[in-house]
Amino acid sequence: MKIILVGASGTLGQAVASELGQRHEIVRVGRSSGDLRVDITDSASIRALFEQVGPFDALVSAAGKVHFGPLAEMGEAEYAVGLRDKLMGQVNLVLIGSHYANDGASFTLTTGILSEEPIRQGSSATMVNAAVEGFVRSAAIELPRGQRINAVSPNVLVESMEGYGPFFRGFKPVPAADAALGFARSVEGAETGRVYKVW
Amino acid sequence: MKIILVGASGTLGQAVASELGQRHEIVRVGRSSGDLRVDITDSASIRALFEQVGPFDALVSAAGKVHFGPLAEMGEAEYAVGLRDKLMGQVNLVLIGSHYANDGASFTLTTGILSEEPIRQGSSATMVNAAVEGFVRSAAIELPRGQRINAVSPNVLVESMEGYGPFFRGFKPVPAADAALGFARSVEGAETGRVYKVW
Ligand SMILES: NC(=O)c1ccc[n+]([C@@H]2O[C@H](COP(=O)([O-])OP(=O)(O)OC[C@H]3O[C@@H](n4cnc5c(N)ncnc54)[C@H](OP(=O)(O)O)[C@@H]3O)[C@@H](O)[C@H]2O)c1
Ligand SMILES: NC(=O)c1ccc[n+]([C@@H]2O[C@H](COP(=O)([O-])OP(=O)(O)OC[C@H]3O[C@@H](n4cnc5c(N)ncnc54)[C@H](OP(=O)(O)O)[C@@H]3O)[C@@H](O)[C@H]2O)c1
Repeated sequence: MKIILVGASGTLGQAVASELGQRHEIVRVGRSSGDLRVDITDSASIRALFEQVGPFDALVSAAGKVHFGPLAEMGEAEYAVGLRDKLMGQVNLVLIGSHYANDGASFTLTTGILSEEPIRQGSSATMVNAAVEGFVRSAAIELPRGQRINAVSPNVLVESMEGYGPFFRGFKPVPAADAALGFARSVEGAETGRVYKVW
Repeated sequence: MKIILVGASGTLGQAVASELGQRHEIVRVGRSSGDLRVDITDSASIRALFEQVGPFDALVSAAGKVHFGPLAEMGEAEYAVGLRDKLMGQVNLVLIGSHYANDGASFTLTTGILSEEPIRQGSSATMVNAAVEGFVRSAAIELPRGQRINAVSPNVLVESMEGYGPFFRGFKPVPAADAALGFARSVEGAETGRVYKVW
């Protein structure tokens, strides 16, 4: 399969590249690194990416930013970061990518455990992850030509605990390589509308 | 209790007013009707509402618009409607209202069955309802002064089947009066971070 991997240079993306790269052709994409560049907050940039890549069999997104901060300090601007980047960035990869994708192609987006398990300062992450999962459930029944869509929801990653540890006390981190298996289930499996929880 | 009811004139809001009005003082609020006016898509308008009302014990939102349309015809502009109105409109009622609300006050937002059960043309509704429920789960652990927050997720209402019927074939509609009970559980109960499903 020809697989577009957005966020290939990231902590999660590198592990996904290792897992899927064993069996498939990976087009590595990032904002400032990779075979090709994209800014997922910019529809024109997304369109340009797909024009360059041509037809493909799977798109994996391991990108997406949200703002973390205490609820009392969150306002419209802070929530807008995650709505524009992790939510609509990933949604636009699907909406635009669907036109370029082969019949039966799959889309796999990234959410995270905060969707269901809230932490202090994480209200935007919980909101946005839940929204992405809602989009996945609903887009699954309307995507054309047998195209599929799933999400992978990893726990905090072992590799990220140095920075994220204080926010995730009591959570049992998972290796990025385990999270990468969720992407293999989505891409190489046959289901649609699923959220694969790696926790 | 002094309860601010946003969307009081609506199909759902009228039923909530009937249920809670039996035991509490209701401040009826709408965009173009009611004791007071607000446009939930406008933070300044929300702030002005709370300045007029003063301290209160509960805020119920039975408002919130999303765009319905086939996935293939949905783009950034179409999703923006629901993100601005039903999602951030309700979120801003909480973020701003929290400063004006009494200790122990409750916030109750409206989502809907589409959060978990997708229908054709409903991808924005599913996304936005899921996002509101995520916000409720996460805000519940950070709201100050014992304030609580829940959501009510009604099935399609009996009273709305004339218009919505074709989209909801096979769904068993619930009377608006039943949905209103979910709001009573939230406002008059003691839980926080819950989604009360009326289906
Ligand atoms: N790390 C964790 O513990 C964890 C746990 C659960 C979920 N997640 C989720 O997994 C995703 C990736 O996390 P991560 O820790 O791997 O992040 P990361 O190490 O910071 O990597 C981010 C990747 O996304 C790319 N990127 C960033 N902004 C972009 C944009 N606007 N357009 C296109 N690409 C962009 C970056 O490209 P460049 O390097 O080229 O700029 C990089 O490849 C996030 O959504 C995160 O919430 C992470
Ligand atoms: N009807 C159903 O079957 C059903 C089922 C599940 C969930 N829901 C959800 O329940 C909520 C209410 O639905 P409904 O059918 O009762 O709607 P509705 O009959 O159209 O009533 C909408 C109410 O919200 C007010 N409103 C609209 N836009 C507003 C804004 N920007 N700022 C402040 N107030 C605004 C309206 O005020 P004015 O009249 O003064 O303009 C009206 O009181 C929606 O979020 C809907 O998704 C409905």
